[in-house]
Amino acid sequence: MQEQITLMEAFNGAEIQLAGHGKRDVQVLKQAFAAAEGNIGSDIYGDGAVIEDFQAEIAGVLGKESAVFFPSGTMAQQIALRIWCDRKGLKTVAYHPLCHLEIHEQDGLKELHHIKPVLLADKDRLITLEDVRNIGEDIACLLLELPQREIGGQLPDYAELEAISAYCREQGIILHLDGARLLEVLPYYGKTAAEVCGLFDSVYISFYKGIGGIAGAILAGSKDFTEESKIWKRRHGGDLISLYPYIIPAQYYYRQRAGRMAQYYTEAKELAALFNACDKVSTLPEVPVSNMFHVHFALSKEQAELILIEVCAQTGVALAARLKETGANSCYYELNIGDLYGGISKTKLKETFGLLDQLLKEA
Amino acid sequence: MQEQITLMEAFNGAEIQLAGHGKRDVQVLKQAFAAAEGNIGSDIYGDGAVIEDFQAEIAGVLGKESAVFFPSGTMAQQIALRIWCDRKGLKTVAYHPLCHLEIHEQDGLKELHHIKPVLLADKDRLITLEDVRNIGEDIACLLLELPQREIGGQLPDYAELEAISAYCREQGIILHLDGARLLEVLPYYGKTAAEVCGLFDSVYISFYKGIGGIAGAILAGSKDFTEESKIWKRRHGGDLISLYPYIIPAQYYYRQRAGRMAQYYTEAKELAALFNACDKVSTLPEVPVSNMFHVHFALSKEQAELILIEVCAQTGVALAARLKETGANSCYYELNIGDLYGGISKTKLKETFGLLDQLLKEA
Repeated sequence: MQEQITLMEAFNGAEIQLAGHGKRDVQVLKQAFAAAEGNIGSDIYGDGAVIEDFQAEIAGVLGKESAVFFPSGTMAQQIALRIWCDRKGLKTVAYHPLCHLEIHEQDGLKELHHIKPVLLADKDRLITLEDVRNIGEDIACLLLELPQREIGGQLPDYAELEAISAYCREQGIILHLDGARLLEVLPYYGKTAAEVCGLFDSVYISFYKGIGGIAGAILAGSKDFTEESKIWKRRHGGDLISLYPYIIPAQYYYRQRAGRMAQYYTEAKELAALFNACDKVSTLPEVPVSNMFHVHFALSKEQAELILIEVCAQTGVALAARLKETGANSCYYELNIGDLYGGISKTKLKETFGLLDQLLKEA
Repeated sequence: MQEQITLMEAFNGAEIQLAGHGKRDVQVLKQAFAAAEGNIGSDIYGDGAVIEDFQAEIAGVLGKESAVFFPSGTMAQQIALRIWCDRKGLKTVAYHPLCHLEIHEQDGLKELHHIKPVLLADKDRLITLEDVRNIGEDIACLLLELPQREIGGQLPDYAELEAISAYCREQGIILHLDGARLLEVLPYYGKTAAEVCGLFDSVYISFYKGIGGIAGAILAGSKDFTEESKIWKRRHGGDLISLYPYIIPAQYYYRQRAGRMAQYYTEAKELAALFNACDKVSTLPEVPVSNMFHVHFALSKEQAELILIEVCAQTGVALAARLKETGANSCYYELNIGDLYGGISKTKLKETFGLLDQLLKEA
């Protein structure tokens, strides 16, 4: 009798994976370094051409005066909020209930910076202008995440975003952008990064989401803001003697993939439609607005896992690595389109989703 | 007329450098990755063989139950002190006035953790048992740095260290080791790392000092201590999705150089004697106790720079990259022996120090 493999084992052993750019391994780094010309010297505690040039390049892309490379977005965003709170003399900020700072950072913002967050909107929907108008207490800063990852990567209409920005400026509320996946939403908005960032006082972007680098983040804003962020970067223990192992891949994959976001977005819409055509499946959003969406099954986690393992065994295509239970008969997972999806043939996709639909109908 | 070059320019252009392992550049990383066998998968937020195996290896070396890899010592040590303070319910620690946390971290310990340091001993000498006995207020934790870098890398006698450790245990004071350069002092003490670490409750070591890695640190102690440190690592923004770009070089250079510390120490004593034989030069300590020492000149910084530039021009040997002024007629720099020193011929050393002595006599 054969022992049942787990969904993660099926995923790791699969011939074809639907999402992402491929495995996170040392090849990702070696490839970027192989392409780097000459024998580049290390950055030294934030100085040196390798870090300064990249910071200037990304500041330009984001239309901000200055930018600082951080080892992580967690560090960059806590620091951004701390600076704004200090300047306003007010230790209160507002963000979405499923904000990264609220659910993924072990309460660093509260434990290290003693900043109190006001949670805006219900957790299953976007923050609206109305929510911002009704905060009901003084805040130093509002953080908006574009797209709102934990609800499938949804986006406000651009007009709503402009209205929130205008309201914050009028009220003297600082507006910070959690743009971990900013580049991924530009094709939907039909705007440049600089245009979107123009609505915000400070911006963070990540280099290992759609870009597919190793790790690292950029925090951008006015020069006085970024200079102050460097002091906090040192305090956090993030002013490393050498960050080039992250910077060189960030730059390499940025140049390779920043221009592919429209393709990923188109493919995400195509793929979401394939899912939505299956029984007991829906995507959130129904029509994606970036390279990402959530796939929801109206089935128990155990049932859905067995089906995904079976699809993988018969077609060689791994649809998911893990599922998250949301109820006795509901579960979901997050899907991000990267380079791999484009390499899968239409025939293979048809076969895969045909089988998925059939198994779901029988379930 | 030729324009005078700076000491840093002379250093960077020199054929031979006296200190260190060579330039910090992308080759240092590429070499370590070229030696790594197979296609190693990334660590993911602190999990995975690449990080877990190295942590276990170094925990074993340090004789501690458990170890955690951090992007920086700054982060690791603030967190260590925070944990000990929380456990004691007391926000006071003691350390040397020239402790890294006091002078190189933009007051992260105070600004992020609200911990108050008591500065022990005069800044130009080591902490003694007497100093610890006379603290005069309750402290949660005492941090000792071995060797005390900012005073040339001096060390207490081992018996003194044992006495301080015994006193702290008796008094219920936690003892933390800033062992950034711990491996470098083992030949002088004639002890294993585990023997020295046995005197301490928690230990930090660095991988880019004598080891010559890219960046990164290990924090070691009991399992409950290191597990708690992982929560703070996440809060600080140091729980990166991928730390393998630092871990693989740390492991590679650890294996290459951990066994060379006795050689570096012997060479440091030889080199310090060459300096001390010159006019207007003295080293601190006079006889080094590790691979490092300070070189003091009884001359103005400007005069000493001109002489070092001249020595470099005539011999091709760069003795220093920069000097630090300590008075109108005094300046110094720090020197760390690494792989480069062993490659310099005795003849070249004799020529270099002969010229240095001559120029200093004429000054």
